[in-house]
Amino acid sequence: MQFTAHEISLLLNGTVEGDPQVTVSRLAKIEEATAGSISFLANPKYEQYLYTTDASAVLVNNDFVAAEPVKATLIRVENAYSAITVLLERYNTIKLNKSGIEQPNFVHPTAKVGDDCYIGAFSYIGQGARIGKKCKIYPNVYIADNVVLGDNVTLFPGVTVYFDCVIGNNVIVHSGAIIGSDGFGFAPNPDGTYSKIAQIGNVILEDDVEVGSNTTIDRATMGSTIIRKGAKLDNLLQIAHNVEIGSNTVIAAQTGISGSTKVGDNCVIGGQVGMVGHISIAKGSQIMAKSGINKNIVEENKKWGGTPFFTTYMDNMRNEAAASHLPALEKKVLELEKVIAELKKSVQ
Amino acid sequence: MQFTAHEISLLLNGTVEGDPQVTVSRLAKIEEATAGSISFLANPKYEQYLYTTDASAVLVNNDFVAAEPVKATLIRVENAYSAITVLLERYNTIKLNKSGIEQPNFVHPTAKVGDDCYIGAFSYIGQGARIGKKCKIYPNVYIADNVVLGDNVTLFPGVTVYFDCVIGNNVIVHSGAIIGSDGFGFAPNPDGTYSKIAQIGNVILEDDVEVGSNTTIDRATMGSTIIRKGAKLDNLLQIAHNVEIGSNTVIAAQTGISGSTKVGDNCVIGGQVGMVGHISIAKGSQIMAKSGINKNIVEENKKWGGTPFFTTYMDNMRNEAAASHLPALEKKVLELEKVIAELKKSVQ
Amino acid sequence: MQFTAHEISLLLNGTVEGDPQVTVSRLAKIEEATAGSISFLANPKYEQYLYTTDASAVLVNNDFVAAEPVKATLIRVENAYSAITVLLERYNTIKLNKSGIEQPNFVHPTAKVGDDCYIGAFSYIGQGARIGKKCKIYPNVYIADNVVLGDNVTLFPGVTVYFDCVIGNNVIVHSGAIIGSDGFGFAPNPDGTYSKIAQIGNVILEDDVEVGSNTTIDRATMGSTIIRKGAKLDNLLQIAHNVEIGSNTVIAAQTGISGSTKVGDNCVIGGQVGMVGHISIAKGSQIMAKSGINKNIVEENKKWGGTPFFTTYMDNMRNEAAASHLPALEKKVLELEKVIAELKKSVQ
Repeated sequence: MQFTAHEISLLLNGTVEGDPQVTVSRLAKIEEATAGSISFLANPKYEQYLYTTDASAVLVNNDFVAAEPVKATLIRVENAYSAITVLLERYNTIKLNKSGIEQPNFVHPTAKVGDDCYIGAFSYIGQGARIGKKCKIYPNVYIADNVVLGDNVTLFPGVTVYFDCVIGNNVIVHSGAIIGSDGFGFAPNPDGTYSKIAQIGNVILEDDVEVGSNTTIDRATMGSTIIRKGAKLDNLLQIAHNVEIGSNTVIAAQTGISGSTKVGDNCVIGGQVGMVGHISIAKGSQIMAKSGINKNIVEENKKWGGTPFFTTYMDNMRNEAAASHLPALEKKVLELEKVIAELKKSVQ
Repeated sequence: MQFTAHEISLLLNGTVEGDPQVTVSRLAKIEEATAGSISFLANPKYEQYLYTTDASAVLVNNDFVAAEPVKATLIRVENAYSAITVLLERYNTIKLNKSGIEQPNFVHPTAKVGDDCYIGAFSYIGQGARIGKKCKIYPNVYIADNVVLGDNVTLFPGVTVYFDCVIGNNVIVHSGAIIGSDGFGFAPNPDGTYSKIAQIGNVILEDDVEVGSNTTIDRATMGSTIIRKGAKLDNLLQIAHNVEIGSNTVIAAQTGISGSTKVGDNCVIGGQVGMVGHISIAKGSQIMAKSGINKNIVEENKKWGGTPFFTTYMDNMRNEAAASHLPALEKKVLELEKVIAELKKSVQ
Repeated sequence: MQFTAHEISLLLNGTVEGDPQVTVSRLAKIEEATAGSISFLANPKYEQYLYTTDASAVLVNNDFVAAEPVKATLIRVENAYSAITVLLERYNTIKLNKSGIEQPNFVHPTAKVGDDCYIGAFSYIGQGARIGKKCKIYPNVYIADNVVLGDNVTLFPGVTVYFDCVIGNNVIVHSGAIIGSDGFGFAPNPDGTYSKIAQIGNVILEDDVEVGSNTTIDRATMGSTIIRKGAKLDNLLQIAHNVEIGSNTVIAAQTGISGSTKVGDNCVIGGQVGMVGHISIAKGSQIMAKSGINKNIVEENKKWGGTPFFTTYMDNMRNEAAASHLPALEKKVLELEKVIAELKKSVQ
């Protein structure tokens, strides 16, 4: 994929200053760019790099005035930062624009696949599954019986979707994520062994959800584990059976949410957080990385942290700061004890 | 899969009250059930929902007396809770009753596959591997050379079993789990680089073990990493080389157990727990989520928590509670210090 | 694979004492060895087992003098410990010596594959990908468009490498690891929804890197996420976009490193550690398991621990020890308070 500065200026409604025929094939930060790259200057802090960069072309704002000579071709646009976002998206669209049906694949005769889908080699679509339009099913993906996918869904290589799960429109699931494996449910027997409790529910990913690589989302025991519209899940999350994650909630990597817990809308959950089962987290909650949450959060739109006696973010920081000078406090108490003992003697 | 109330009453040895020809196709909680569902009333707390539910049929105990008119067909059984478990299992058995050999697959000519196995498309069975009877090898599963599987083993899509590993009867491994990858063993060299220590042992999963999705169990350096009979492992666990997990021990998601540690029988380990290597955990130990365990646990059947100075569950809760009012304690000590200073002046 | 004691003595430049024709087919610890095994005695502490072992052959040092009769055939070598390492490697080389091209596979016509590669069934090599010599691409591996692999790379079953990523020589990636999935980048919109920020960078694994099973390494937003030469990553790690991991740094399982953080060379990072984004960790740092690191570490070659106010290893241990007798400290302060109150009365 090579573009001339001229072609890019047309795409971005910009004007070229320098050689309009210079070609670029990748995007790069201005301080790292090499010949053949296009870069951008949005933050004035980086202006110094404009005069030394090896980038072949650089996007700048219309009103930018260079203080020194510039080697690169400039493309002037209304807003260099927005323009680079447009370019990033365009670049990605081209990169991810897979199409066609690769062989061999396994599509059950009863499965229905919508128009304009990409079906990668070694992908599997089970009995009664229904796939919408413009989906991208990468190689080694497994879609079990009766799974339903909306339109414009991307399942990257190696995704597994267990039977009966439902995935909405525009959902993206990254490689190795497992949707709908059994919830962790076992009934103890008198002899110490466990009997498996059948897990017959499913997982629902609503529209615009993104799921990170190697994240696991267990099916409900009965009913559904639900990830609401627009929620974004990072890599290596554990979402247990019957959990609900609210709309537009984002959760960072390696966090685990135990069975039947409900996380509200618009929450921001840090990485490596753990939540016990059967609690509710109020909408708009922000939870510090590594926290352990063991009871309901009722107040909305607050920041929390700590484990297992988590508290507001500020109180947690105060507690932790105090903990970090505990040995000094202990020493002081011992000294006070001695002083008091002597005082007592003087007084008696 | 549709059943009439009459068919279900035969399966459960129950009696129908209402329309025996009403059909149901799924199980649901009584408070969420829609038409076409069968539900159950086991806990009297939920009786109110019986009078408003849209379920087509509801299981109740033989001795249940309705206080109001009921729209749904009732199926009376000796124990509604046990009956629903029977139904759940039956439902799951039908859902998971895959059979036959799908194409394409790769089965090495020297591999032996028992009777009545399901071999999914794109699954791989290596040289010298031996698969028992009634196994379900889902698509995209990799079974390496010389692996041995017992009877009635289920490997869900995308499971990988490295060479020489041994899996017992009735074992279930969920998608993306990796059995037998190399232990993390490297010998430091004087120049700061590391040389890999060959990992030539294997992993043994004994009978009735269940392994969650994307869990990793490393092979032993020499000898075996062993998961004993009936142990249940949740998702995203890390089980390092030469670890042993005791019989009927259950471990929640995202916990990690370092090399050569031995966990006893009948333990219950919470999520996101970490254990250092080369320690022993007494049988019947219960360990709180997020704990860090860095030395042997010798006393059996106790609860523990905290990190890295973990202690009994109750002491840990006391410590953590105290930690949550540390800033107040610090303030009080400062105040006492002032009082003492003044007292000293008065006395002198 | 069977070898006689004689064959092994030739390989190790040793001498046989006992039956040179006894055959062995596996390596085992001296206290666990059964007939048909070869074992070793390097640590004098284990000498007792030499007289009772069922091993068919045992490696001992040239200068070893047996105190009792030995049933096993002895193979005398200069250094029994080094010799066993040689045997382990030889054993592993044979086990992992896969070769040839299995069918079916998918290799895009524009992809280039070097000499002497193993291509497993159901593996996928995309458009424009370049694979070096002597690589082992196991079954169900996905190599996306334009990926570059050096020589002697091993990708175990089910590894996914997203487009444009670059892997050096002698790299080993274990099953289920995901190289190059999208960084977790979203721009918030005024209505609470998020827009995806295109992730167009890549991942570079330099020479001699090893990546554990189910580890996820996200591609850079722009530029590269880089794992430097000789770094060793354990299982289930999360390496976020634009992270750099230094040369010969080792990181234990389930640790997560947030976006744009740079970890120096020769660090040793424990398991379940979390690091926030945009920080730098000095070379030679050692970080205790489960720590949470939220600011730069500038001093080189120190040990650190704790969260979120992490400190030197020794200070952290002192803080944590103090925390474990906090309830006693609280009680003492309350007692002192009473004593002071009484003193005050006496003085007034």
